[in-house]
Amino acid sequence: MAYAKQMLDTHPLPAHVDREVLARCIEACVECAQTCTGCADADLAEEDVVELRRCIRLCLDCADVCDATGGVLSRQTAYDAPTSTAQVVSCRLACATCGEECERHAEYHAHCTLCAAACRRCQDACDRLLGAMR
Amino acid sequence: MAYAKQMLDTHPLPAHVDREVLARCIEACVECAQTCTGCADADLAEEDVVELRRCIRLCLDCADVCDATGGVLSRQTAYDAPTSTAQVVSCRLACATCGEECERHAEYHAHCTLCAAACRRCQDACDRLLGAMR
Amino acid sequence: MAYAKQMLDTHPLPAHVDREVLARCIEACVECAQTCTGCADADLAEEDVVELRRCIRLCLDCADVCDATGGVLSRQTAYDAPTSTAQVVSCRLACATCGEECERHAEYHAHCTLCAAACRRCQDACDRLLGAMR
Amino acid sequence: MAYAKQMLDTHPLPAHVDREVLARCIEACVECAQTCTGCADADLAEEDVVELRRCIRLCLDCADVCDATGGVLSRQTAYDAPTSTAQVVSCRLACATCGEECERHAEYHAHCTLCAAACRRCQDACDRLLGAMR
Repeated sequence: MAYAKQMLDTHPLPAHVDREVLARCIEACVECAQTCTGCADADLAEEDVVELRRCIRLCLDCADVCDATGGVLSRQTAYDAPTSTAQVVSCRLACATCGEECERHAEYHAHCTLCAAACRRCQDACDRLLGAMR
Repeated sequence: MAYAKQMLDTHPLPAHVDREVLARCIEACVECAQTCTGCADADLAEEDVVELRRCIRLCLDCADVCDATGGVLSRQTAYDAPTSTAQVVSCRLACATCGEECERHAEYHAHCTLCAAACRRCQDACDRLLGAMR
Repeated sequence: MAYAKQMLDTHPLPAHVDREVLARCIEACVECAQTCTGCADADLAEEDVVELRRCIRLCLDCADVCDATGGVLSRQTAYDAPTSTAQVVSCRLACATCGEECERHAEYHAHCTLCAAACRRCQDACDRLLGAMR
Repeated sequence: MAYAKQMLDTHPLPAHVDREVLARCIEACVECAQTCTGCADADLAEEDVVELRRCIRLCLDCADVCDATGGVLSRQTAYDAPTSTAQVVSCRLACATCGEECERHAEYHAHCTLCAAACRRCQDACDRLLGAMR
């Protein structure tokens, strides 16, 4: 695996931050987007879907935001620090908010436990990347 | 047209900000994403593609960010102001940065002129929405 | 409006099919993706959300598929007919299936009426484009 | 890893095809989308960017199509076989076409070697899933 790291290592331009930290954030975004898409769908099929409305909405938002962030971070050509940073800031918040909501349902739904973990990993990866970007 | 406004008007929940301002921002995001995708591709076919690398990269980023923002803003259920705001802040910056770059090539490439205009409209729509969100 | 048409008109390469037909399909995809995202969210807030599960799922799929199709069709450089055609075929089916489901709820939910119309427009635009691509 | 499989295993509804085959295809789509986004960007920074135009375009298409396919396949609620199948058919073709182009540049660009491999894996995963869907 670690395909994001390999792509960075073979890019003709050097990465603008630590490649390990960057690759982890890209992969965390990609994994979180998929997990949130799956969690929103699993929520939708649950008997208590009415109680899961906020979870579904935040999962759909988090999937969209992680997807865009993974795209932006995958590009090294003509890197623009302010725009990348703003998108990672938004991603960190989307993951924190969604992860918190998923944790509220973790006792009843194992997919929410998994999704909360993916959100936390992505939030942490964004945190570390923002630290490295400064 | 004005389909985004009609969707907001028929939503079972009230919008959390002025629906006209919100709908304009959604449609500006959607239009800017498509225009940026088209501009990146037109740049790629130009003879001076080497001079257009930064334009292509920023257009691809701006398309990703506008697309995610349009998705987030299209949702009214369980609205979460901080996450929506952070994404609109990122979108405004992506549009401002991409619009500025496209303007640099507007003299030579009509698609850059159009794309710069779409970016400016979306930047302004984000500005107005952020004002209304406060 | 008609920004997609203007982008095609200013592209350095000629379009591979009638530009009017192509531009209409791009704009129909973009509009349908936004409408489906909004309809899924409106469904989620409805009292009868349990009856709307299939509608939500198909709207989310249709949004993803229309979004990808709009991206593919926005590119003219190194056009590859078979891949573009396969994606438009998938898009036409996603729109037909989602539109049919939305129509079933149109009597009760105005957002489903609007979304069914957007799906039908996009299905028709795909049909016409497939005709022009042959 | 194997997060897609875990999400399927914890979904309240049974998967409509072999979960191992489905999960592999979801993860292949997600990985291929990220790799193609990275390859298009690496191509853009190469000295021979003019020779890589077709590679960039097909990578951008493949990323869009894989992204949509990964989303559609991540949903189990109200599964609709024809729409899912049509999207996987489109994805298999996008991956085959992009993989073939990337292989043409593999001798000179290691990122193209990696991207060709990701495309082939995703093409194969689509093939197996289509076999299981029948």
